[in-house]
Amino acid sequence: MSVEVVERFRALWRSLEKIGRDEATGGYRRHGWDAHELACREWFAEEAADRELTVREDGNGNVFAWWGEPRTGDAVLTGSHFDSVPDGGGYDGPLGIVSALLAVDLLRERGATPRRPIVIGAFAEEEGSRFGLACLGSRLLTGVTAADTALALTDRDGVTLTQAIMAAGGDPATVGPDPELLSRFGCFVELHIEQGRALADLNAPVGLASAIWPHGRWRFEFVGDANHAGTTRMADRHDPMLTFAFTVLAANKEARLSGAHATMGRVAVRPNATNAVPGRVTAWLDARAATQSTLDGLIMSVTAKATERAARDGTTVTVTAESVTPVVDFDAALRDRLRGALNGIPVLPTGAGHDAGVLSAVMPTAMLFVRNPSGVSHAPAEHATDEDCAAGVEALATALEELACR
Amino acid sequence: MSVEVVERFRALWRSLEKIGRDEATGGYRRHGWDAHELACREWFAEEAADRELTVREDGNGNVFAWWGEPRTGDAVLTGSHFDSVPDGGGYDGPLGIVSALLAVDLLRERGATPRRPIVIGAFAEEEGSRFGLACLGSRLLTGVTAADTALALTDRDGVTLTQAIMAAGGDPATVGPDPELLSRFGCFVELHIEQGRALADLNAPVGLASAIWPHGRWRFEFVGDANHAGTTRMADRHDPMLTFAFTVLAANKEARLSGAHATMGRVAVRPNATNAVPGRVTAWLDARAATQSTLDGLIMSVTAKATERAARDGTTVTVTAESVTPVVDFDAALRDRLRGALNGIPVLPTGAGHDAGVLSAVMPTAMLFVRNPSGVSHAPAEHATDEDCAAGVEALATALEELACR
Repeated sequence: MSVEVVERFRALWRSLEKIGRDEATGGYRRHGWDAHELACREWFAEEAADRELTVREDGNGNVFAWWGEPRTGDAVLTGSHFDSVPDGGGYDGPLGIVSALLAVDLLRERGATPRRPIVIGAFAEEEGSRFGLACLGSRLLTGVTAADTALALTDRDGVTLTQAIMAAGGDPATVGPDPELLSRFGCFVELHIEQGRALADLNAPVGLASAIWPHGRWRFEFVGDANHAGTTRMADRHDPMLTFAFTVLAANKEARLSGAHATMGRVAVRPNATNAVPGRVTAWLDARAATQSTLDGLIMSVTAKATERAARDGTTVTVTAESVTPVVDFDAALRDRLRGALNGIPVLPTGAGHDAGVLSAVMPTAMLFVRNPSGVSHAPAEHATDEDCAAGVEALATALEELACR
Repeated sequence: MSVEVVERFRALWRSLEKIGRDEATGGYRRHGWDAHELACREWFAEEAADRELTVREDGNGNVFAWWGEPRTGDAVLTGSHFDSVPDGGGYDGPLGIVSALLAVDLLRERGATPRRPIVIGAFAEEEGSRFGLACLGSRLLTGVTAADTALALTDRDGVTLTQAIMAAGGDPATVGPDPELLSRFGCFVELHIEQGRALADLNAPVGLASAIWPHGRWRFEFVGDANHAGTTRMADRHDPMLTFAFTVLAANKEARLSGAHATMGRVAVRPNATNAVPGRVTAWLDARAATQSTLDGLIMSVTAKATERAARDGTTVTVTAESVTPVVDFDAALRDRLRGALNGIPVLPTGAGHDAGVLSAVMPTAMLFVRNPSGVSHAPAEHATDEDCAAGVEALATALEELACR
């Protein structure tokens, strides 16, 4: 790995890293179609223009920078997303876009001549932190999520996706699947920071993905009766916070027993006042497992335990699957080809969803991971060293050269 | 009870009831110094002016309407507050102010001539729903809470009390105790909707308070490590949501065992994202008991259980008492005198805090309760019939006549 690539990575990273960073927490707040994400898109358009790439936005808020003629087919797509979870780290997403820009620079210096276009994509609302649906941009592009369904989604302030797109100067009428655009992509390679410690344990800066665990989000609505906290007898209460609390502990226990992952990290309480027994608690369960049957079993048993407890508390619980993504096995031929070009780097599965998971249904798809020493993700402490990021840039350049220039 | 009083109550109630009501929930959102509370104060000033009462605002956002010369001492103070919990009912607070205005009308019609001024007070931020400290107006007036402490309090949007007072056109420099004003009040009688079903069970429209249970608010800060919900192994997590959930259940259980009331009805999670293990959960415990030792024991055992669980979860918990109010035994002589004038109406304790509890430390204080058929409080379903409200007006008029006109 060259010192020069490290320096270039640092410089380009620095030009982006202030956008949407909260000074108090050090975490990022870049969410689909908000001012910060739009500023990132603008930064991207400028960097692409500097490189004489042709920038095209699709109808779903995804931005593509083409090296080569956009009307040509069989393009090699790379890139990732700019948006973060609330107070997330800076690497999850943007690293894939910054690395792609620098990989284009490297390929040009190497004198590589693409036979196929190379395209850098910036996908909208991958985290789903604003409208609740992960991989929103790629789901809309591929038609996995219908336009009408998406446009009616609301953020925490009640703003619909329709309103957000209009506020950003876009046109909600363009939202929807774009098979013509998709047909021009021959494959997708997404570079991403690792969200665990597998590469750190293996002492390797870069790895390839084998599969994404099946995973999903389930919304639990716990409903009871709002009442005065001081005067309502304990026996007279129908407190949905109790049912919620029991479900949090049950989900954790069931996940441990089945070797799965379960998290209830988001909750909304009404009225959420210190001196009121709540009337309603809404919470989201994020669950993932190595197999679909383990995941199904986990959701069934958590739902059963929540329902049982609700009967004791005199409350009700309703469980709604908001998004469920089956297992993704990345294209074996593509992975083997890249592994050959990259000197047999390690191959590992992940529990995290990605646009690559959505796009894998419509084109051969691969993922490169960059080492994350602490494994921390979706938090300000998420980190990769500049040297590992530069190694990621070089690996991505080699991968793109292998696919587009040979 | 006269039909005319019922009609008058209805008319006056109707003129106030739209301010700050959320059309979707039917609940009220009137919070200290916000647009809705300020609109209520304006409504009050107009109603007082119509009755030729002299309106004076103190330095703490409390508004007083004087029947009689404000410089005279030994006044009989009545009234209550306008602000609500989020999505609270319309009666908790405003009923005491509306009833006082109508009681003044009744006394005038009866030809009563006060020997002492009668004063209707509207106290600021009684629920503490905006700045987290209940009875803020009366606490500041009496000096129970220092001005500096209060002015630095922030609401959920980070607005300080200082900023809120300035935004409302007030002067933060006037905030603080006013012993001169207090010295002009001889006693306080607060009329309030009952927040339980005791009067309904006793088949009585109006009752008198004996005491307020000792009660308080404790803030629990649960701190762990924010991380990715999909990729962080269960064994590697330090999830404060688990510690919080366990504490919710422990507080409920301990309260049942000790015959106390405990509620965790308010929670704030960071980052509060579906796909992130939280880094921090802040929750508030509202606890009340018939005796101080029961209350102390409850807090000790909930804290011990939370701390024990935190050790298991690899998190930490810090417990801070935000406000603790000892038992209030209302003035026995005043209560007995009013009970005599009101034909021996029932006497009952309450678990709810009131400005009357704060003021009882500096003057003889009594409370009248109006029947609440369902006992529901701090929720949109809170209700009293117009007939019972009219009975409350007549009882308050009789109480004021007894105290001020004999």
